[in-house]
Amino acid sequence: MERQILAWLRATFRPRPPLLIGIGDDAAVLRPSGEGLVLTSDAVVDGVHFETARHDWSGIGHKSIAVNFSDLAAMGATPVCVLVTLILPARTTLSDVQRLYAGIEPLCARWGASIAGGDTNFYSGPLAIAVTAVGELPREESAWRLDRAQAGDAILVSGSFGGSILGKHLNFEPRCDLAQALAGRFPVHAATDVSDGLALNLNAILTASGCGAELDLNSVPIAPAARELAEREPASGSAVEHALYDGEDFELILTVGSNAAEEILADQALARNLTRIGRVTAERGLWAVPEDGSRYLLPIRGYSHGPAANLS
Amino acid sequence: MERQILAWLRATFRPRPPLLIGIGDDAAVLRPSGEGLVLTSDAVVDGVHFETARHDWSGIGHKSIAVNFSDLAAMGATPVCVLVTLILPARTTLSDVQRLYAGIEPLCARWGASIAGGDTNFYSGPLAIAVTAVGELPREESAWRLDRAQAGDAILVSGSFGGSILGKHLNFEPRCDLAQALAGRFPVHAATDVSDGLALNLNAILTASGCGAELDLNSVPIAPAARELAEREPASGSAVEHALYDGEDFELILTVGSNAAEEILADQALARNLTRIGRVTAERGLWAVPEDGSRYLLPIRGYSHGPAANLS
Repeated sequence: MERQILAWLRATFRPRPPLLIGIGDDAAVLRPSGEGLVLTSDAVVDGVHFETARHDWSGIGHKSIAVNFSDLAAMGATPVCVLVTLILPARTTLSDVQRLYAGIEPLCARWGASIAGGDTNFYSGPLAIAVTAVGELPREESAWRLDRAQAGDAILVSGSFGGSILGKHLNFEPRCDLAQALAGRFPVHAATDVSDGLALNLNAILTASGCGAELDLNSVPIAPAARELAEREPASGSAVEHALYDGEDFELILTVGSNAAEEILADQALARNLTRIGRVTAERGLWAVPEDGSRYLLPIRGYSHGPAANLS
Repeated sequence: MERQILAWLRATFRPRPPLLIGIGDDAAVLRPSGEGLVLTSDAVVDGVHFETARHDWSGIGHKSIAVNFSDLAAMGATPVCVLVTLILPARTTLSDVQRLYAGIEPLCARWGASIAGGDTNFYSGPLAIAVTAVGELPREESAWRLDRAQAGDAILVSGSFGGSILGKHLNFEPRCDLAQALAGRFPVHAATDVSDGLALNLNAILTASGCGAELDLNSVPIAPAARELAEREPASGSAVEHALYDGEDFELILTVGSNAAEEILADQALARNLTRIGRVTAERGLWAVPEDGSRYLLPIRGYSHGPAANLS
């Protein structure tokens, strides 16, 4: 079965530039063209990030790549290639693996990224897929770090938040489009993607940067799924609580100087995808600032399985 | 536990150049300095590549890195960094993870390689470690491919073969030293590392290159462990059969022009680590060529779990 899978992979996936050598040798070879390479690894595991009993394997394959591309986007990088390590239950068939790749390949193709290699293992445990994604930064551009937010920065977020458990946690598009549109054009100070929840991941930026933030909760974009959950299960929290504390939205949080924020939001295409939800403050803590001038500290909590940071 | 592990990793492992950003952000950032980057992923899994019931976690950690560095060496590349994805049984403790890294870090440090990131997951299955290793080629040097062997090439191998199951399969040194000593100095045509067995991995070079080979079986370096196995369990095969067909030797097979082979073997330091075992032929097949002038085809078989090629 391993040989069958390898033969199929070799015949199916060819390297795209700047990858020189792809599947089939001892390793892949990349000729980097950008300023810097961005590397990230994220695994998805049955019973934690998906359930093979309920989810189609192509959706699982898509998610395994999308969570990694989301991390690349959070650094301002565009995907170049992926290495896909499959840890497969003994009963897995070639056609199962082909279903996985039916989710993996289109997402890679959309960004011109190669499937550069990986490893295939059979064992007695549940399905696990460990992906490493490699991305490139535009020339002259530094990666968007967690720890570079500055007091006075505007906080921008992509998309909307909350209720991803109703479907988005599997079927989301990583924000590579936004990363590509912003990187090298606008001075983004700090960025991350929301895997653990808006509050927790924003707090990761604030803590790393030694800052705090004030949020206008009325401006936080709430996903329809968050409203649906709040209505269906009122005890689970309000819609805005779902938006702040649910995980796996895989949207971007960016902090940029206030002038740059004006410029970004003056661009119609960008403004459609980004919302300003507050500002970075020198004072620590994550504050809700209602219109009446009062304010209060928001609790920092989030979704427990989804690690916020590289190697969490 | 995930947070404890992350906190420990962040505090313990710092990026080494050319890695600019290591553990703790959304991804790692690398400023490549060589001609090309080499990328490889290999996982090790409980019950397949090791047994947690018998093996110390530091040995398992060492192996998880060593199998990947062996692939880098087989391309002529020197390690730069690793991303380590841990898929951990629910009962795993911080101290278990620290034992793993007690095997991982010294091998990385020996080659100046950073622990650049990864991912940590807990689940209901057995221990699995998925590593991606990144290496650099010397300037002006191309990677050592499988498919570039030429008729007339000498076949050189490092170390000795067979019987790795008696201990070497966990506790081996990847041949990064040889790769570093040869790459950029001598024109290596083709190379691979021996994970599936000398015969099978040599055959992978020959098949990819459209060639065959003649081997002098008397010159094949036989490991003491292969002799021990042959003596202890005669039904398991002769010592030379163990050398040809056991897996996980993690030695290098190189093919080089015959003049280059003379030069290499004239270098005392290199000659101590390399043995000429035969030559590449235009005629297909793997032939044993005894001194009496007769010859016969060697069967091509090997060790079943250890994948020979990237993404096998």
